[in-house]
Amino acid sequence: MFNESGAPTASVKVVEEEDATGRVMETYEDIKRTLGIDFVPNMYRALAGNPDYLEMTWQKVQSVMGEEGKLGRQTKDIVALTVSIMSGCDYCIGVYNDAVKRTGLDDEALLELYQVIDLYSGLNRLNIGLQTKKDEKRWHGCGGGG
Amino acid sequence: MFNESGAPTASVKVVEEEDATGRVMETYEDIKRTLGIDFVPNMYRALAGNPDYLEMTWQKVQSVMGEEGKLGRQTKDIVALTVSIMSGCDYCIGVYNDAVKRTGLDDEALLELYQVIDLYSGLNRLNIGLQTKKDEKRWHGCGGGG
Amino acid sequence: MFNESGAPTASVKVVEEEDATGRVMETYEDIKRTLGIDFVPNMYRALAGNPDYLEMTWQKVQSVMGEEGKLGRQTKDIVALTVSIMSGCDYCIGVYNDAVKRTGLDDEALLELYQVIDLYSGLNRLNIGLQTKKDEKRWHGCGGGG
Amino acid sequence: MFNESGAPTASVKVVEEEDATGRVMETYEDIKRTLGIDFVPNMYRALAGNPDYLEMTWQKVQSVMGEEGKLGRQTKDIVALTVSIMSGCDYCIGVYNDAVKRTGLDDEALLELYQVIDLYSGLNRLNIGLQTKKDEKRWHGCGGGG
Amino acid sequence: MFNESGAPTASVKVVEEEDATGRVMETYEDIKRTLGIDFVPNMYRALAGNPDYLEMTWQKVQSVMGEEGKLGRQTKDIVALTVSIMSGCDYCIGVYNDAVKRTGLDDEALLELYQVIDLYSGLNRLNIGLQTKKDEKRWHGCGGGG
Amino acid sequence: MFNESGAPTASVKVVEEEDATGRVMETYEDIKRTLGIDFVPNMYRALAGNPDYLEMTWQKVQSVMGEEGKLGRQTKDIVALTVSIMSGCDYCIGVYNDAVKRTGLDDEALLELYQVIDLYSGLNRLNIGLQTKKDEKRWHGCGGGG
Repeated sequence: MFNESGAPTASVKVVEEEDATGRVMETYEDIKRTLGIDFVPNMYRALAGNPDYLEMTWQKVQSVMGEEGKLGRQTKDIVALTVSIMSGCDYCIGVYNDAVKRTGLDDEALLELYQVIDLYSGLNRLNIGLQTKKDEKRWHGCGGGG
Repeated sequence: MFNESGAPTASVKVVEEEDATGRVMETYEDIKRTLGIDFVPNMYRALAGNPDYLEMTWQKVQSVMGEEGKLGRQTKDIVALTVSIMSGCDYCIGVYNDAVKRTGLDDEALLELYQVIDLYSGLNRLNIGLQTKKDEKRWHGCGGGG
Repeated sequence: MFNESGAPTASVKVVEEEDATGRVMETYEDIKRTLGIDFVPNMYRALAGNPDYLEMTWQKVQSVMGEEGKLGRQTKDIVALTVSIMSGCDYCIGVYNDAVKRTGLDDEALLELYQVIDLYSGLNRLNIGLQTKKDEKRWHGCGGGG
Repeated sequence: MFNESGAPTASVKVVEEEDATGRVMETYEDIKRTLGIDFVPNMYRALAGNPDYLEMTWQKVQSVMGEEGKLGRQTKDIVALTVSIMSGCDYCIGVYNDAVKRTGLDDEALLELYQVIDLYSGLNRLNIGLQTKKDEKRWHGCGGGG
Repeated sequence: MFNESGAPTASVKVVEEEDATGRVMETYEDIKRTLGIDFVPNMYRALAGNPDYLEMTWQKVQSVMGEEGKLGRQTKDIVALTVSIMSGCDYCIGVYNDAVKRTGLDDEALLELYQVIDLYSGLNRLNIGLQTKKDEKRWHGCGGGG
Repeated sequence: MFNESGAPTASVKVVEEEDATGRVMETYEDIKRTLGIDFVPNMYRALAGNPDYLEMTWQKVQSVMGEEGKLGRQTKDIVALTVSIMSGCDYCIGVYNDAVKRTGLDDEALLELYQVIDLYSGLNRLNIGLQTKKDEKRWHGCGGGG
């Protein structure tokens, strides 16, 4: 339950892999196999105190993220990172900064992503401050021609 | 300065197209030509009270969004929409919901995007509440195998 | 309780000025006299269902905002507007866009304020995304020399 | 790329001062000279992987913050700090808590600033919860007489 | 797809009740029966363009909110309203302001809830600004004795 | 002013208990007695540089949280934790995760609380993205029957 610095892993007691039984153990095995890693991330170990919540979360994650869908895996990971940055969730930002690198973004592309987030975080607040009214005609974003 | 409902267009006096001169007029023309629309959106008309700010914003937008870059235009528009939803900027959400449709997302794909935003907005708060500590090993996001 | 559009003024029943008695009536009178207006704003009328909360809020507002202090009235109003824009509270943004104009900001200065908010909303997200570590030495902000 | 605690400085590889060449080196020199410091802050070193983004950011910062304008330097720094606190950007809060002290705010004034932020963060949520409708007449903020 | 004011119900085409077939129709029926209402709320009608997402959302909602659990229904509704106010989701705030009234909160209790939200939204920002370090000993919140 | 790690306790100089005099000392004593702890939390020690703000905060906290009211103490603590999680205030989340445990929530109940926060943080963003219009009839939340 405590990591090397002596701080607890999470606000609830985590279920260690060696203590997992039944449904929790099966879900742990499925997580490791599906994600291709040899450990269960802290988030899932913290959820295991409520096996229903653990299972539901893992199924939802697989259903939403595990399939290509219309957006494609890389785009979904980019959106997941963007949402995490906007929410200010340090744990999730760390995981998804790594995730998008693995799906092919190099540092230059990652900075390009931050630049879009930077630009729109600014323009969003500008328009919230301006209380800009909806335009009478439709347009299609700030970016581009044709 | 007032739209049909009698409410002001923005918290500052906007510069109407017919009143624009000099640099503001040139920027207005460039905006319409580049975006392929026959009007100047309210956001830019509100900025025109400060011509430097108008120009700087328009140049930044073109520089960040007008080029393909490594991410590609559609991905950038998707990120712009995601940021706007996370900021809660109604004006921007309206513009970018339209924008991503024009770059090729149908309603099914748009719902898929909202689903990723929905999922991670939830997981972000979960981990913020849990105060989950960084994992001792790296992993690569919730989505995927291999 | 309903305004002209038929929508309720607030999620709780407001106490109209003509129905106010006792402490609520006295607070209403004090609000109008102190703010130099001839009506009780909707926010205070909504709070009146809980006279203690109404009084505590009004006293707090006067204590924090009613005195010059070290920051000065105009700076405090600018901060109040900035906070309201960052919180996305449309009601409050409307009130404080008007408030800073009365304390002396013209449209050009208001756009200058939005520009600072725009810039830092962007840089904040950039650094949250970058997970930038604290610098080893102190510095003093992005703005200035000497 | 790693600081004393062994954690990376940022999510992308930073460009150390001794490795900077060409435009990046020039921008680094300009940053140090203009800000009057003898090191390049982590934020700028992380941006250097994309020299265009580095230059554009540095120019924008100087343009917005480097001039007095109508608001004045101290007010701009106060707004920058307020925005950073509302965004929850720990890196930026640290920098701007120091910045406003250098432009003349002592601890008493800083607490006064936090008090205004505290008050309006609360009132903002109150009105968002109440779904308070716009008042039929204008008023000018919670603070003041006359 | 358009409501009385001529604005679309949502950013995607909604599936009207009379057009629903198969799984969507069954889910619509289940929603109305379970919630005890004679119409399908706009949120669910908008999701129906993606039947999997509709079903998954409805099942999750029932699983999380439909059971008493350890917290109890009223507390869960209060938390749902609090989250909606903090997210600034006007649609959800409207629904849950009504929901908590039905589970027994009168206007006085609702104002008490807003007061707690007001207080902590303020204290949260204060501590974020102060960058307050964790106390060396544990304590148990601001509220109470013993 | 510095804790064991060498980092300052807060952005302003804190008033240590042994240095407190007059009103500050009395407030310190009252805090410890009322909260049943043998130390003054960092938040209050940081406020003491402005004795009026310290007193006002402590009185407000007691007034809002110290009484049962219509909501009850446990519910108020749950709301305080929920608000802190939504604001992303790490200091406050730590304090209130402990607080709700002391008022009777075990790990299972705490996970149940996070699950409600997770669900609605997601649904909120979904509806913000959908720009869902208000339903023409009232309903009473996602949770429940009859």
